[in-house]
Amino acid sequence: MHKIEIDTNIDVLSLNKKIARENREFFKKYKIKAINIMGAIGSGKTLLIEKTVESLGDEIKFGAILGDVVGSADLKKVARHNIPAEVVNTGKECHLDAHLVSHCLEKFKDVDLLFIENVGNLICPVDFDLGESVRVVMVSVTEGDDVVDKHPEIFRLADVIIINKIALADAVGANVEKMVNDAKKLNPKAKVIKMDLKTGVGVAEWLQLVKELVS
Amino acid sequence: MHKIEIDTNIDVLSLNKKIARENREFFKKYKIKAINIMGAIGSGKTLLIEKTVESLGDEIKFGAILGDVVGSADLKKVARHNIPAEVVNTGKECHLDAHLVSHCLEKFKDVDLLFIENVGNLICPVDFDLGESVRVVMVSVTEGDDVVDKHPEIFRLADVIIINKIALADAVGANVEKMVNDAKKLNPKAKVIKMDLKTGVGVAEWLQLVKELVS
Repeated sequence: MHKIEIDTNIDVLSLNKKIARENREFFKKYKIKAINIMGAIGSGKTLLIEKTVESLGDEIKFGAILGDVVGSADLKKVARHNIPAEVVNTGKECHLDAHLVSHCLEKFKDVDLLFIENVGNLICPVDFDLGESVRVVMVSVTEGDDVVDKHPEIFRLADVIIINKIALADAVGANVEKMVNDAKKLNPKAKVIKMDLKTGVGVAEWLQLVKELVS
Repeated sequence: MHKIEIDTNIDVLSLNKKIARENREFFKKYKIKAINIMGAIGSGKTLLIEKTVESLGDEIKFGAILGDVVGSADLKKVARHNIPAEVVNTGKECHLDAHLVSHCLEKFKDVDLLFIENVGNLICPVDFDLGESVRVVMVSVTEGDDVVDKHPEIFRLADVIIINKIALADAVGANVEKMVNDAKKLNPKAKVIKMDLKTGVGVAEWLQLVKELVS
């Protein structure tokens, strides 16, 4: 749950930044690359983690923190791939913050690459740096081809933008190129990947990025 | 943008409730039924409003308030149906509140039924009563068939739960009956409608509900 903005002497965003810096130092100390995966509900975040671990699990030591309002459905999916994983339930909060993430870092000292799957939401995670090295924003064509345009802030801070479920574009009447162009216009520096996790389109390009990140 | 919860003497949720009561009195005075439509990004909220106005616009006077973070794409879609409509941009906020809604009510004095389309989000709108008569929560099968189970709070407060895009269930591997059962378990009193707005499935059932509401 969150309330209206109130001016106090406590700057919670500064506090978040401070803890994010500490997380970043932890990652540096243990040579961990951390990827904050943000995206709407059902955009494919958990499946992206699963496919990556399936493909590269022999060469890279992965770990995963899974943010969700309630429950541990995603944890079960990821844990079956035999990687260290932890669920963070945010209760009524609609995003992870650096403090929540910091609580479970000890478990991941030995990993090369830590996925941090944020709560399914394209608005709230924007203000909360978690200490990550890379920010991925994932949407799917089934959310409507105006989904990028409607949420400029989150796309502006992305390093990688994934447009998923492109095999369904015709079925839902979505214009994939419009989405790609909207993403590039908002953020010319970001890498934009057209993907379809179920059929495998774009996955090789993503895996290459992951390999470069830990090399 | 929102921050962590801070204890103060200002209870913003009580303030919201007070303004929601005022909105409710306004609706009563002018004999307006207000429907708060909540749901994830791209679940079909705007299209539901459009289809309803297309079908029943001759017999019911509609109006629409369209909540979005930025932009007026939804306003353009709805306004072409020649009904009074207003966009409410929430900036960094991820939900409408009673105060934001109250600002544009004067425009809708003459309508029978006012749609209030909330910001695309299944978490944040839960705490903010807008003064509405009916709460609709809309999700689509493309969000994954665990989307209901993962967001219990919002489904508990719904009067009507719509599971949309069921024609795509096979393509995305979603179990529609699981979603219906999850919804019924969380909220046995809610009306659950299986819908596919593009092909028309479930629309008649919805239109019947709308007609009963204003009769």
